[in-house]
Amino acid sequence: MNSIGTLFRITLFGSSHGTCIGCVIDGIPPGTIIDEVAMAEDLALRKPITGIGTPRKEDDMVQILSGVVGGRSSGSPLTIVIRNKNTDSSAYEKFRDVPRPGHADFTALLKYGTDVDIRGGGQFSGRMTAPLVAAGTIAKEILKGIGIRTGAYSLAIGRISDEEERVLDDILQIRSLNPTRAADAMLGTCMEEEILTAAQEGDSVGGIIKCVCENLPIGIGEPFFDTLEGEISKMIFSIPGVKGIEFGSGFAAALMRGSVHNDTFALHGDKIVTLTNNAGGVLGGISNGMPLEMRVCIKPTASIGKIQHSVSMCDMKQVELQIGGRHDPCIVPRAVPVVEATVAITLVDLCMRGGFIDGKG
Amino acid sequence: MNSIGTLFRITLFGSSHGTCIGCVIDGIPPGTIIDEVAMAEDLALRKPITGIGTPRKEDDMVQILSGVVGGRSSGSPLTIVIRNKNTDSSAYEKFRDVPRPGHADFTALLKYGTDVDIRGGGQFSGRMTAPLVAAGTIAKEILKGIGIRTGAYSLAIGRISDEEERVLDDILQIRSLNPTRAADAMLGTCMEEEILTAAQEGDSVGGIIKCVCENLPIGIGEPFFDTLEGEISKMIFSIPGVKGIEFGSGFAAALMRGSVHNDTFALHGDKIVTLTNNAGGVLGGISNGMPLEMRVCIKPTASIGKIQHSVSMCDMKQVELQIGGRHDPCIVPRAVPVVEATVAITLVDLCMRGGFIDGKG
Amino acid sequence: MNSIGTLFRITLFGSSHGTCIGCVIDGIPPGTIIDEVAMAEDLALRKPITGIGTPRKEDDMVQILSGVVGGRSSGSPLTIVIRNKNTDSSAYEKFRDVPRPGHADFTALLKYGTDVDIRGGGQFSGRMTAPLVAAGTIAKEILKGIGIRTGAYSLAIGRISDEEERVLDDILQIRSLNPTRAADAMLGTCMEEEILTAAQEGDSVGGIIKCVCENLPIGIGEPFFDTLEGEISKMIFSIPGVKGIEFGSGFAAALMRGSVHNDTFALHGDKIVTLTNNAGGVLGGISNGMPLEMRVCIKPTASIGKIQHSVSMCDMKQVELQIGGRHDPCIVPRAVPVVEATVAITLVDLCMRGGFIDGKG
Amino acid sequence: MNSIGTLFRITLFGSSHGTCIGCVIDGIPPGTIIDEVAMAEDLALRKPITGIGTPRKEDDMVQILSGVVGGRSSGSPLTIVIRNKNTDSSAYEKFRDVPRPGHADFTALLKYGTDVDIRGGGQFSGRMTAPLVAAGTIAKEILKGIGIRTGAYSLAIGRISDEEERVLDDILQIRSLNPTRAADAMLGTCMEEEILTAAQEGDSVGGIIKCVCENLPIGIGEPFFDTLEGEISKMIFSIPGVKGIEFGSGFAAALMRGSVHNDTFALHGDKIVTLTNNAGGVLGGISNGMPLEMRVCIKPTASIGKIQHSVSMCDMKQVELQIGGRHDPCIVPRAVPVVEATVAITLVDLCMRGGFIDGKG
Repeated sequence: MNSIGTLFRITLFGSSHGTCIGCVIDGIPPGTIIDEVAMAEDLALRKPITGIGTPRKEDDMVQILSGVVGGRSSGSPLTIVIRNKNTDSSAYEKFRDVPRPGHADFTALLKYGTDVDIRGGGQFSGRMTAPLVAAGTIAKEILKGIGIRTGAYSLAIGRISDEEERVLDDILQIRSLNPTRAADAMLGTCMEEEILTAAQEGDSVGGIIKCVCENLPIGIGEPFFDTLEGEISKMIFSIPGVKGIEFGSGFAAALMRGSVHNDTFALHGDKIVTLTNNAGGVLGGISNGMPLEMRVCIKPTASIGKIQHSVSMCDMKQVELQIGGRHDPCIVPRAVPVVEATVAITLVDLCMRGGFIDGKG
Repeated sequence: MNSIGTLFRITLFGSSHGTCIGCVIDGIPPGTIIDEVAMAEDLALRKPITGIGTPRKEDDMVQILSGVVGGRSSGSPLTIVIRNKNTDSSAYEKFRDVPRPGHADFTALLKYGTDVDIRGGGQFSGRMTAPLVAAGTIAKEILKGIGIRTGAYSLAIGRISDEEERVLDDILQIRSLNPTRAADAMLGTCMEEEILTAAQEGDSVGGIIKCVCENLPIGIGEPFFDTLEGEISKMIFSIPGVKGIEFGSGFAAALMRGSVHNDTFALHGDKIVTLTNNAGGVLGGISNGMPLEMRVCIKPTASIGKIQHSVSMCDMKQVELQIGGRHDPCIVPRAVPVVEATVAITLVDLCMRGGFIDGKG
Repeated sequence: MNSIGTLFRITLFGSSHGTCIGCVIDGIPPGTIIDEVAMAEDLALRKPITGIGTPRKEDDMVQILSGVVGGRSSGSPLTIVIRNKNTDSSAYEKFRDVPRPGHADFTALLKYGTDVDIRGGGQFSGRMTAPLVAAGTIAKEILKGIGIRTGAYSLAIGRISDEEERVLDDILQIRSLNPTRAADAMLGTCMEEEILTAAQEGDSVGGIIKCVCENLPIGIGEPFFDTLEGEISKMIFSIPGVKGIEFGSGFAAALMRGSVHNDTFALHGDKIVTLTNNAGGVLGGISNGMPLEMRVCIKPTASIGKIQHSVSMCDMKQVELQIGGRHDPCIVPRAVPVVEATVAITLVDLCMRGGFIDGKG
Repeated sequence: MNSIGTLFRITLFGSSHGTCIGCVIDGIPPGTIIDEVAMAEDLALRKPITGIGTPRKEDDMVQILSGVVGGRSSGSPLTIVIRNKNTDSSAYEKFRDVPRPGHADFTALLKYGTDVDIRGGGQFSGRMTAPLVAAGTIAKEILKGIGIRTGAYSLAIGRISDEEERVLDDILQIRSLNPTRAADAMLGTCMEEEILTAAQEGDSVGGIIKCVCENLPIGIGEPFFDTLEGEISKMIFSIPGVKGIEFGSGFAAALMRGSVHNDTFALHGDKIVTLTNNAGGVLGGISNGMPLEMRVCIKPTASIGKIQHSVSMCDMKQVELQIGGRHDPCIVPRAVPVVEATVAITLVDLCMRGGFIDGKG
């Protein structure tokens, strides 16, 4: 279904080549500042970049249909609409017969039948994440009210990987200056090179996004089932192309000893902290006051220029398939603001459920 | 909160050292065979094993309080209770002051206050997973009705890692014969060795569990938000100690090219299959008919024999802490049936939501 | 919150004097015909009528932003928007200080604070029901697929009450021909008179709406808590002005003996029916195959011309208040299609949950 | 389904003639006093009374399986179990073939099939309300923390109706002293007479229950859909035998003019009140600070001694049916504490959602 959240709830609608995409955001505390400039800035981070991105140009102008009076939320649901302008669906008709490898054409058609809209990926398109980014701007504004800050960046693209610890201020500043959304300018250049190389070969690359959230109060998360990690993971797997998520030590924990992995409690002034953060900021599904840290793996773009093999579902024959047009040879940079937005959205909901944010403004 | 699921819903209750643990299972199709022998077998896989497990012995006898008449579900909620017998809470009182590194003592106390029950880990204990295993037996029985089979096993424990592809029949047979729940007897011995070495040093090890589900119909999963991966992930992160989850290629996708990662569609008889399974059986959040494959990372047990450092919350001083008694030096083997159970539970819910299983029997 | 439904879900947005009102409808089976003409006809039943209605004229043109391709639902959420055109909010500013008796101004301001939008009643306005009527048209189209028909009409307005049993065909035909939505032309004239008399005195009248649904399969409703009556009631109390709901015999049951109230089971051909329908079509929270019958009480319009007394919240003084402009002296006729729509929406959700309607088209 | 509530959630299980009945209560603030004596007192109000009640005697001993340490809630789910002791299911086998008029036998069998448990009414029995009463005791304890008090009583039984306004203190005191749960001793005697007369004729009577809640803060209720009235109504219709519900003026509003129905705002000291309470304490789905008042209609008991007519579903023939044993000739008095409990449960959930009660203790 297309709604998520308990007290702060997003309902997503639209499709890649339909009239528009958008979402309804329910549960915004009345009086929250709705900053359309900040929204546009976040959306700009999601736009394709000349050289390494698709030439489909969408201005992604946000139109707010409801929920705002005088620049502030009224407490009733806020509706965001982004018109689709640059749509050319002619190429997609053939994918109803010959599904593209790595895409949802096949499963969508078999699940929903022939009335499903798969033009441009339909409701499975990465384009659906634009309204999430806009909703994320609002979520970040709400989080700011209790001091929480979030930042995501490209940790790895193809073979280029960032091995340094990054500070949130640096992340936010540097990522916006380089097209790959790296937290280091030099690495960003290497990542760009990695993408271009693949693109020139008609191929694509994947990568890893890291997201850091600072200044969380202790106590966010509603176990047993509605854990901080669980709620975030469910949301993150909605983003097209995600193959895995890990918190703190993550998969590296498999090779660690308990004596190394356990984060020692210590005093920092009058605050209890941990000396390491293998927990990634979560113990027992509940935030422990340390930075929340996670890594999200994104697969290489499924749409590539190379000739591929598939099946004609009408004829039940194996056929060759070449996907025309140009696509993003790497969606990692564009997914960076999406990861950040979805994490922020989930945090707002859990903060409201835990009583850290008052939904009534 | 302690309920999960839309049409097939589990509500968990109890605590590690309380009277009992248990769950209510709502949405079982009437007439489903409730096989208490199969339940006991699944629970046996979760029991600690002499040599590599905690000496706390619980018989884990399941008592069914409601929902069954004549060995079959009546359609009303089924309630499972497992009495706690071997509880000694004396050791836990001090953790109210000095939280154990890597445990939920700290976050639980700060979130819920001093009335929270942290004896034996309270509601954050791995013991809470026993009722989930029992619920999983019922879920697997329901899945069997439409031909779906699931199997989890230890893919890696410490430095020992299983590099082979395993067939479901082998997994199910071999894992039950070796105490580490490996899918290969020889590897199992090595894993056992790895655990014992750590244990002798007062330490613990982590690992990775793989879960495979075969014969899923195409179409399971309710995107945009209620994806197959998302729903499973949320559930999996409820299991104490989980640090990450990945599907199909997972984090390895970051290093792959699209031309390699894309699974080519091909014909296998009159069926459309993919030649590889980097998708892990999911496209666009919907099952594609190939085996559903995921890997779950489990951290090394937080309770270790070695002296650790923590903080006395009353005195606000740094103190040494030694956790008495013996604990599982590795929980991976015991988490294997839990991963399998939780995946099965999630699949039943999504199959009902997708119309693949009729909730009315 | 502004969403309702489990598998068929409505999310409502907008406000009376904002840019627009609308809703997102999730769970429409792909391929459902979206009949904009039928939608316009249903919305026409909700429009104010010259003589007995407010002169605020809204054309209520429905714009569909998403979810439809070629006149049929695509399976992704359908978004409806209705622009507000005839808004004059100048009169409403003073109600922020002096709340109108019988209106939500007072509770809205105290709950949501000064940022809440109360212009024209804001989100508490009867205008919010227009998108529900449009959603109801789709719900009725879906119900038609399994033969269910619904019809509401004005049973009583002020002192004029309809004592006859009405047949669904008559209800649907006659109510659209008379402005009070009565199921009998003569009674309709009397009801109109009743409304005009009150209006001339600067006053308003209430009434009762009856809704009948025919051809329900046996088995709709998910007790213990999600009963057929309970789900409908929750939905019905969203409609502004509703004070009560009763099914079948309703409050009259208090005065009946069991021997009279019990509906005798009997054979009608090869079908089991009941000879009376005091149950109103529901037994144990589940439809029994007889017509579903309910009555909904609507209070007299709160906005009246007469001088009233209220309190200035700034000055904390008692003051006189006269509500300018003209309002509907009776909202019962306009609420008739709303009751019908909301019942239909609830039925679709419960039919999907019970497996009577396949959400996948 | 068998769960209700968003932040304060009840999951009901068991059946009338199964091993036990019970519920899980999730969301109790940690540290809440769990008063088993108060629970027993509330349950005593629900017991059949010699002379006018069924002779089935159940001691209704509550056993708490989880969630309490040292008499206070721990914050993890609290599980209540009440054993069934006095069960004789022999009489019920025949109702699988010949459904009882006015009972759920027919709909339960057709919905859930032959595995459904209809012994003693199964999950449709009034007995299922006992755990709700126990949960209600806890809910009332939580409400007491913010000053809210609730009280229900028999407003009408058969032809005997209470026309006076009653004060909450009187209601609570007097109802417990007379077996019909009237708020006036003399009326109670008349109501008892009314019941006995019907009983002597092998018949039954219905009635109306009024529930009053005092001292609600302004702002409870989450419109548009989750209104105060809507949430309560959904819950109330779970109670077997309910045919209608109305708030404040209720159905009488149909005959009132707006000028009479509108409750005038006025000052009472420094508080804004209304001079009348036709709203029943709710405006726009949100509590307005005045007493919350509702009336619930209960049908006459379906089980009567008189010979009735039904159908043999095996033979598809019309047959006579006599229901043996003795049943409550009027369930109104026993439903009084159930209405009170369910209203209290709903209020706790809405108070938590609105931030009036802190779920974290």
